[in-house]
Amino acid sequence: MADEVILLDFWASMFGMRARVALAEKGVKYEYREEDLRNKSPLLLQMNPVHKKIPVLIHNGKPVCESLIIVQYVDEVWRDKDPLLPSDPYLRARSRFWADFIDKKLYDAGRKIWATKGEEQEAGKKEFIEVLKQLEGELGNKPYFEGESFGFLDIALITFYSWFYAFETCGNFSIEAECPKLIAWAKRCMQKESVSKTLPDKNMVYEFVLGMKKMFGME
Amino acid sequence: MADEVILLDFWASMFGMRARVALAEKGVKYEYREEDLRNKSPLLLQMNPVHKKIPVLIHNGKPVCESLIIVQYVDEVWRDKDPLLPSDPYLRARSRFWADFIDKKLYDAGRKIWATKGEEQEAGKKEFIEVLKQLEGELGNKPYFEGESFGFLDIALITFYSWFYAFETCGNFSIEAECPKLIAWAKRCMQKESVSKTLPDKNMVYEFVLGMKKMFGME
Repeated sequence: MADEVILLDFWASMFGMRARVALAEKGVKYEYREEDLRNKSPLLLQMNPVHKKIPVLIHNGKPVCESLIIVQYVDEVWRDKDPLLPSDPYLRARSRFWADFIDKKLYDAGRKIWATKGEEQEAGKKEFIEVLKQLEGELGNKPYFEGESFGFLDIALITFYSWFYAFETCGNFSIEAECPKLIAWAKRCMQKESVSKTLPDKNMVYEFVLGMKKMFGME
Repeated sequence: MADEVILLDFWASMFGMRARVALAEKGVKYEYREEDLRNKSPLLLQMNPVHKKIPVLIHNGKPVCESLIIVQYVDEVWRDKDPLLPSDPYLRARSRFWADFIDKKLYDAGRKIWATKGEEQEAGKKEFIEVLKQLEGELGNKPYFEGESFGFLDIALITFYSWFYAFETCGNFSIEAECPKLIAWAKRCMQKESVSKTLPDKNMVYEFVLGMKKMFGME
């Protein structure tokens, strides 16, 4: 029996994109279902009753929630393709640590850049750059975060790249000026089809952010 | 060469206790080093420069940080003993999901119970019980969260049990009255030496919480 794989997602979500990149890396065919986050589907509420959030990967009827958990699940189920996580326990722990760091620090800092003004926005920009510089330190001179090949931590971070133009335009600053090696890494990742075909166009994300600002009365 | 294993920890930390229970389950000998959290050691700051938090497991000189990542690391390195995580990818994802849920919801709710008063404390109690009831639903009629044997998700949650008496006394409520099956599970876990020898006495934790309340001027 063929696997039935469904992804409940929202196009502009960095978290949803992680699941999509992982599935593309593994060559898994799946049905993509776009959610209206202001009017969530009964299936989403049924499959993720705890958080009621996308992405949710439904594999043969069983839901897997939370983007980093989904990426690990995809890596563990579709083992015929190259692994996304390193095999060494220490390197695995290290990848998990930095992916968790991204979730704890980068999203909130990014949100402050587009959703606030004045001092709070300045603080957000400073925080965002500090977090990226720490990640740049972890990258070092390696082509990818886990070494020679694209993997788990690359997936955890690269999806934020689709929002960089929106952050830069809202915050009037240049990420590349501050973190040139990280941008070189991002461009390297974008040469991979799994990434370039998944990440939305930067202008679309910017338009989406402008719409959100309008909705929040922040124009 | 024998492994050198050092744990930087603080006795009352539910997060630190997770590492200790995992190491005990695997029968790993290690050097325990108590940290003074108001005056952190140079080693802690060097080994976890990002978060500067305990627990840190230092294995042959290399640091692993964040308690759930430590437990997974211990499980992956010391493979001769029974695994802590299930082998099935879906069950692994499920364990990771609920452990992450505990980290996102239970700690903050618990903190509100002892560190706030009035309405905020009441909200904390309500939240705490709701979170435990969701976990009780996940436990169902199984002896342990992952089935017949004590594992990853049991470790993630049981360490909070050492704080239940403090929560109950500060909040003037009974957790057992609300979640009897969860308390039965906790008592079952306490029959394991890895747990009973790790978790501190409830009165010691309560005294510690009273000390914290005093420090925050909350008597």
